[in-house]
Amino acid sequence: MFSPLIDELIQSLRILPGVGPKSAQRMALYLLERNPSGASRLANRLMTAVEQVGQCQSCRNLSEEPECGLCRNPRRDNDLLCVVESPGDVVAIEASGTFSGKYFVLHGKLSPIDGIGPSELGISALESRFETHCPKEIIIATNPTIEGEATSHYISEKARKFDIKVTRIAHGVPVGSELEYIDGSTLAHAINSRQEIQQ
Amino acid sequence: MFSPLIDELIQSLRILPGVGPKSAQRMALYLLERNPSGASRLANRLMTAVEQVGQCQSCRNLSEEPECGLCRNPRRDNDLLCVVESPGDVVAIEASGTFSGKYFVLHGKLSPIDGIGPSELGISALESRFETHCPKEIIIATNPTIEGEATSHYISEKARKFDIKVTRIAHGVPVGSELEYIDGSTLAHAINSRQEIQQ
Repeated sequence: MFSPLIDELIQSLRILPGVGPKSAQRMALYLLERNPSGASRLANRLMTAVEQVGQCQSCRNLSEEPECGLCRNPRRDNDLLCVVESPGDVVAIEASGTFSGKYFVLHGKLSPIDGIGPSELGISALESRFETHCPKEIIIATNPTIEGEATSHYISEKARKFDIKVTRIAHGVPVGSELEYIDGSTLAHAINSRQEIQQ
Repeated sequence: MFSPLIDELIQSLRILPGVGPKSAQRMALYLLERNPSGASRLANRLMTAVEQVGQCQSCRNLSEEPECGLCRNPRRDNDLLCVVESPGDVVAIEASGTFSGKYFVLHGKLSPIDGIGPSELGISALESRFETHCPKEIIIATNPTIEGEATSHYISEKARKFDIKVTRIAHGVPVGSELEYIDGSTLAHAINSRQEIQQ
């Protein structure tokens, strides 16, 4: 129904997360009909970002510079290191405003079935970081999935060799939600990790 | 929180219809982290499409060739011309599979307040089409909004000078929906445009 170039554009837009055939078509027609200058700008920025954005050499977060802004920031606490699965997790934790340490981004989780082992997650870079700038505590914030827990376990074993305090973020009932609607395994976590109320 | 290049990419992605700040961030991180080759391909295709896709010289639909596939198709009925507001409308009508004529795309609707007059909608191209390949009937399929109705009225006046039969698509209760949930003005349309049941 579309000309070949428009069809190819629609196919390419479908790689975006959450974009199905209808949305891709709407996006393509919008860009070509109403906002060609925005479309050119998007194409240029996409090209530049793909070419120049790589990984920060200390934390492996996405950055176009050898060392990212968070790692260069002298006000961040070097003694506290938070290990996360993806750059999106860094954004979420930063948005909460409660963490002032540094990060280490794994870009995945241990998953032997998908061929993802310690080397894909940069575990050796993490170990050499333990050797050079040893933090006092690492907070493991991988997701509470089977692979996330396995990754957490693996990293905590490595950290223990360096005599680092290892903590795991708490899993339980999200603030603002109602117990009635929480799944069983989250509730089990919440009950098992209960904390004494300070008088 | 992001490096400048990633921030710019997120801003650019926000021009896409239906994409807010959270989705744009998710898209940018996905493209850079998981699918840089798909991102390059998207950037290239976007660039090519913006450069090469223009308007078909007969129907003003989006096309990278001087005359689009629908206009070149010898099996389409030249006597029937459907006037629509946008290329998306052509797609929707084609998907319904009930129309075998040709199209004319206005790329908008009369809206003096936005500075959109007959010349922006290519009305003179439509008139010269009436002069050269006069269709027997034009079906006006602009949207049932105030501007869409005004556009419909304006075009029907033009067409009448050429002694062309002018029709308007029916507005009424959508198939598969329930009367109870239909808004009043649609129901008023449906009742006023009622048709006699053929025995």
